[in-house]
Amino acid sequence: MSNGKHYSLNLNIRGITKSATLAINELSKQMRKNGQEVYPLGLGQSPFPVPVSVVETLKLHAHEKDYLNVNGLEELRRAVATFHKQKDQVNIRWKNVLIGPGSKELMFILQMVFYGDIILPTPCWVSYVPQANIIGRRIKLIHASFENKWRITAEQLDEFLASENDKFKPRLMVLNYPSNPDGGTYSEEELKKIAKVARKYELIILSDEIYGQLNFEGKHVSIARFYPERTIISSGLSKWCGAGGWRLGTFAFPDEFDWLLDAMAAVASETYTSVSAPIQYAAVRAFKGGIDIERYLWRVRRILSFLAQLTTKMMADAGIKIHQPEGAFYHFVDFANFADKLKAREITNSDQLCKKLLADTGVAILPGSAFMRPEGELSARLAFVNFDGAKALAFSETIPISEPLPDDFAERYAPGVIKAISKLIEWIQK
Amino acid sequence: MSNGKHYSLNLNIRGITKSATLAINELSKQMRKNGQEVYPLGLGQSPFPVPVSVVETLKLHAHEKDYLNVNGLEELRRAVATFHKQKDQVNIRWKNVLIGPGSKELMFILQMVFYGDIILPTPCWVSYVPQANIIGRRIKLIHASFENKWRITAEQLDEFLASENDKFKPRLMVLNYPSNPDGGTYSEEELKKIAKVARKYELIILSDEIYGQLNFEGKHVSIARFYPERTIISSGLSKWCGAGGWRLGTFAFPDEFDWLLDAMAAVASETYTSVSAPIQYAAVRAFKGGIDIERYLWRVRRILSFLAQLTTKMMADAGIKIHQPEGAFYHFVDFANFADKLKAREITNSDQLCKKLLADTGVAILPGSAFMRPEGELSARLAFVNFDGAKALAFSETIPISEPLPDDFAERYAPGVIKAISKLIEWIQK
Repeated sequence: MSNGKHYSLNLNIRGITKSATLAINELSKQMRKNGQEVYPLGLGQSPFPVPVSVVETLKLHAHEKDYLNVNGLEELRRAVATFHKQKDQVNIRWKNVLIGPGSKELMFILQMVFYGDIILPTPCWVSYVPQANIIGRRIKLIHASFENKWRITAEQLDEFLASENDKFKPRLMVLNYPSNPDGGTYSEEELKKIAKVARKYELIILSDEIYGQLNFEGKHVSIARFYPERTIISSGLSKWCGAGGWRLGTFAFPDEFDWLLDAMAAVASETYTSVSAPIQYAAVRAFKGGIDIERYLWRVRRILSFLAQLTTKMMADAGIKIHQPEGAFYHFVDFANFADKLKAREITNSDQLCKKLLADTGVAILPGSAFMRPEGELSARLAFVNFDGAKALAFSETIPISEPLPDDFAERYAPGVIKAISKLIEWIQK
Repeated sequence: MSNGKHYSLNLNIRGITKSATLAINELSKQMRKNGQEVYPLGLGQSPFPVPVSVVETLKLHAHEKDYLNVNGLEELRRAVATFHKQKDQVNIRWKNVLIGPGSKELMFILQMVFYGDIILPTPCWVSYVPQANIIGRRIKLIHASFENKWRITAEQLDEFLASENDKFKPRLMVLNYPSNPDGGTYSEEELKKIAKVARKYELIILSDEIYGQLNFEGKHVSIARFYPERTIISSGLSKWCGAGGWRLGTFAFPDEFDWLLDAMAAVASETYTSVSAPIQYAAVRAFKGGIDIERYLWRVRRILSFLAQLTTKMMADAGIKIHQPEGAFYHFVDFANFADKLKAREITNSDQLCKKLLADTGVAILPGSAFMRPEGELSARLAFVNFDGAKALAFSETIPISEPLPDDFAERYAPGVIKAISKLIEWIQK
């Protein structure tokens, strides 16, 4: 935005750049165009195709051209409510479901509509804070630690909420699990404890469960089970259904949250209007699920879990601080053990680390700073998705789901992941 | 939002309801569910199907699932640039095209990003002002008059711009033609004069040409031809391509407007991310056009023009103040001649008029107040789209395009339009 100096721009937006993940993705594309080899561990996009039945449903509804209801197609809202009931054992009324063009857009509108503080445990997803900056909202961070598997504790939350003078001011916390950027999740016990603290302070929770179905063991638990009265569940097609580019996200509200849902729908009606009609019809098929979707999910989980384990071991063996992910397709690692070596190479923060790594090796990862980690922490996110998901999935179909994938699976079907991480290890150790 | 009293909502959003057009649409649906007969002249949705070739292209690309570039698919941006070159004789660089999920969303982001006043000639589209209210921007209205066919004059604009103390403060005017709500447009001469005034004050123009291809004579002229340096052209698939529910809008910027485009893309990357991938691929086909699209457009224009002429005559004969539309599918009428009669029925403004009309007759139209007309003016918008567009189009194909439609075309293919307007006339005259 360098050439905007004479022009009139909202100060909240001046100097804001494209979100870190998208920027890395576009830079990687550019490097590739210039003939440089790039290992894109930056963008968190599912490598798997959209399930065939869902694609076929989109084709069947390609002619649908009417503006749909602002809140979403009734059939889809019903399917989402049933999805949460069956998958998460949470009762959601279908009228309490809101459909948006991505859960990111819904989160933005939520921040715009809700007049209160936003509380974010870190490491957190890259877009929450820029959204708050654009709107002019106040963000409060609670830093989790590597030692606690990047999870906040109920005690930490209690301490934070108690520390503010007005203990009942409007506050909303975003809790994301399985987590982007670290692939970790909360246990049922941990969620129960957090729910208890939240109840004490009437804290609203936006439970970002977009990776819920990518819990490797298929055992995702929602905090809404223990705190139904003030938990909004966020989900969508982007991750478990492989349809990031389709842009469809969902919010499921508790009862008596009409005040918030209606306000969001009012803003929606003056902005995106409704989500693309053919996409909504196709999404009904995805959320209704069925045996084909379940098979798809188990195959996807097996592949991701295999790669997660293998790459965790590679990095742990190399001395990188890492936890084994429990879901999604990310590692959030800490290069603290290499701090002295890196300092000698004039690398003292995560931004410098990621830039130098990309320039030296073509390996694109995202700096911990993008996930709101403290200055100076040498952390970074790696998305292990640079492989042909369709090919890997097709091969996986030849192996009964009860059996493990063969040892050479990664070499054969995700060589780019292995090569990128090997290059990263080589670079960090030199 | 009655039950939000104890909750914490952004004051700019409290009390905002769903946009007038969408609200009327949903209310009409509700009445119909209750078994009441409704004549929906409220929502401005194209009644025509999406051209077959465009639907087929969507099917071909149903599997596309990657996040596309924030600014839009390169192929689509190129097609949009070429479209404006061929249709409007305006040179747009493809890099200056931005794709969004509807031009409404793009307009919202523009208002959020641009730090300046927004100038709106009225009657104007229903969403500009609520958007400004949500964001907290200042709107300045310039009222056009029935006598001047609801168009502002260059002299009026000059007077307004000169009247402000800081003549070069950042200001952006939205000029919409063919116009929603009145179907009128500007002549080449009028646009040249407005361009001259705009240049004098360095006014930025957002030229909302979403109905451009629905100029009944196929002779749409863009002000960008005469004021290329500060005109942003807004278009999309919703109207001329019949794909409102698909949600795809386009902005085409002048050169050296990177400062604005980049800022908008930055906000886009933190909100809607990118427009649905399959929809973008299909839109390439629509904007590239070809003989099938041209034929479709001529048929659509012939039908709309026929209905516009017939219904104008019906209402003019009944003593309603009306101008014959030159494009789109709207009438903006003034019931001033019935003011005394209406007053006797306790109707003294457009809101009361539309509510009473809907309750008494089932005819749904939108009040002039929604289009920012002065309090007390008895104006309203009628969208003559309550007919089966596919059926009408198919019949139209049996009549060579050089010939007129038969006299009984409306009775046979748009009986709801005729009946609604007859009911309206009967009601207003009683």
